[in-house]
Amino acid sequence: MRINGTPYRSVWVDEHDHWSVRIIDQTKLPWSFDILRLTQLREVAHAIRSMQVRGAPLIGAVAAYGLALAIRADSSTEALERAAELLAATRPTAVNLRWAIERMLGILRNTRAADRVAAAYRAAEAIADEDAAQNEAIGEHGVGLIADFAAGKPAAPVNVLTHCNAGWLATVDWGTALAPIYKAYDRGIDVHVWVDETRPRNQGASLTAFELGKHGVKHTVISDNAGGHLMQHGQVDLVIVGADRVTRTGDAANKIGTYLKALAAHDNSVPFWVAFPSSTIDWRIADGIGEIPIEERSPSEVTTITGRAMDGSVATVRVTPSDSPAANPAFDVTPQRLITGLITERGRCDATVQGLARLFPEHAV
Amino acid sequence: MRINGTPYRSVWVDEHDHWSVRIIDQTKLPWSFDILRLTQLREVAHAIRSMQVRGAPLIGAVAAYGLALAIRADSSTEALERAAELLAATRPTAVNLRWAIERMLGILRNTRAADRVAAAYRAAEAIADEDAAQNEAIGEHGVGLIADFAAGKPAAPVNVLTHCNAGWLATVDWGTALAPIYKAYDRGIDVHVWVDETRPRNQGASLTAFELGKHGVKHTVISDNAGGHLMQHGQVDLVIVGADRVTRTGDAANKIGTYLKALAAHDNSVPFWVAFPSSTIDWRIADGIGEIPIEERSPSEVTTITGRAMDGSVATVRVTPSDSPAANPAFDVTPQRLITGLITERGRCDATVQGLARLFPEHAV
Repeated sequence: MRINGTPYRSVWVDEHDHWSVRIIDQTKLPWSFDILRLTQLREVAHAIRSMQVRGAPLIGAVAAYGLALAIRADSSTEALERAAELLAATRPTAVNLRWAIERMLGILRNTRAADRVAAAYRAAEAIADEDAAQNEAIGEHGVGLIADFAAGKPAAPVNVLTHCNAGWLATVDWGTALAPIYKAYDRGIDVHVWVDETRPRNQGASLTAFELGKHGVKHTVISDNAGGHLMQHGQVDLVIVGADRVTRTGDAANKIGTYLKALAAHDNSVPFWVAFPSSTIDWRIADGIGEIPIEERSPSEVTTITGRAMDGSVATVRVTPSDSPAANPAFDVTPQRLITGLITERGRCDATVQGLARLFPEHAV
Repeated sequence: MRINGTPYRSVWVDEHDHWSVRIIDQTKLPWSFDILRLTQLREVAHAIRSMQVRGAPLIGAVAAYGLALAIRADSSTEALERAAELLAATRPTAVNLRWAIERMLGILRNTRAADRVAAAYRAAEAIADEDAAQNEAIGEHGVGLIADFAAGKPAAPVNVLTHCNAGWLATVDWGTALAPIYKAYDRGIDVHVWVDETRPRNQGASLTAFELGKHGVKHTVISDNAGGHLMQHGQVDLVIVGADRVTRTGDAANKIGTYLKALAAHDNSVPFWVAFPSSTIDWRIADGIGEIPIEERSPSEVTTITGRAMDGSVATVRVTPSDSPAANPAFDVTPQRLITGLITERGRCDATVQGLARLFPEHAV
């Protein structure tokens, strides 16, 4: 996607040295567009843990490049396994991370140490390229949902609500939930996005609003509390969100608060769609609420907020009394009964065992 | 209630001059405990509009004192009517404001101009005293709900979730949603409160956490997004919220986001109670979503957040890109079908026409 006319992916190999890994520091957006250079495994682990890169598909791709950097330093099988273990432990909820690492291990364990560096970069690049292509396919499979509403209301925009950031910044390119929106915009459909702020880290206000704005897509930021009220008053045509892990039954873990929007959509007969590449599906599990581990992040993400101070500097302020504790579960699980359907790189389906098995018969049990 | 051992109400007549009106500037909490002195009608209107005082019962009482100040300056009927109109227009959603003004007008229109000042102070004091007494009664009628859970889990705290601030700072004293919690605490019941942050103005993090902490009640601040997840995992025993306007059918307007928590409570079979004095009931209307006007406040409340900077100063930071618009509906309506019951100064009842009519037969149509 483009920023001020220049095309970017969210992770790439440096165009000059051809080995270091470049990312956009997402903790600085929208205040500052800083490109970081990662040269070592521990920098990659830090980037994922500290959410300089985030979004389930993106952390999978970055972890793949992290293994390439690790092997560049030490191509032994022991170092490879240690690096894989370190990276897998950086974030617990998104399954794409483990998916990417296992795919890399499957290739590299069967490659001679001397050939591993080149093989690792090739494999990581394949993961990144596939993610971009899959997300563009998600856009193509999802745009019809928006086009259908547009056909029914020629004089008004189609209002899509989204939560957190499942845009190109959360993937290698295009995004998941936002891919159909970009496709609709590119086709000239009048689309407007309600952007949930998404406390505590505000990825909606800071990342989704940023990337929609840079692309020229109409949007309005709202507090996470507002979506139900908008749905009660007919101001939301459909909801599209991303996912960090989807069970084979169609339950979807996504950023904390997604479940509340799914409940409101259900209560107001607003379609609620979840968009993700198949690397987000955890085929081993059936009960999302019982089986998906939910990351508990630092209370400081709740007690403080970072933004741009009136003097232009980036500042952090404390929003709670200094002696009040806070809790910070980072994800919740939306049960499949609340999901209208799923959008994947192979098409749309019901959020059911049968729906997913039809699209991905090779995984059906 | 007490702050560091000293008893306070949230509005009172100055103890030295016996005519000016004292309030706590709630826009400064928890960073600074500033007591303001209001001497003119326009200062009172500003205090309500800017939310130096907020909370449906409190703005009713403050408006009553505002009329006393207006009459002190000009005791004519014309001035009285003009002042009433000005005050009624400060905030549109809470019905207690209009209730208090109409009660004052009913008395003052029938009082000779020469006697109006004294009558106005007496009537305002009666409204304030009644509010404190009614809220204490709400506490007595609601504490049993918490005690029942405590009896069933002797080794663990009863977990109550609340949204926004419906504590003593939102009323003259005691609070509505928090009154049963204070009564439970005072009885030695092990109670713990999940405090929703309540964006955009963060009244949970800044006011509810402040007053619970000052009273010694255990609490944990969470993002507004987290409550559904906690309910899915059995970590919420019951929800108690306040209200800004309740229809005769039991629909309840309250701070934006309340509806989302009611949906989650309903989906997880968690009891959801709404606590308010009868001055919050609008007996004229039956359809909350269709008939209760929802205040749209400034987008700047969404795009910026105020807190304490690392150097100790109070600072405001911008959290959205500078060219992203924002919308800010301040309340939503929870339909009565999602409400387990209502807690009023006369007792508890179902959120139905029949339930309210049984407690308040004088209003039944």
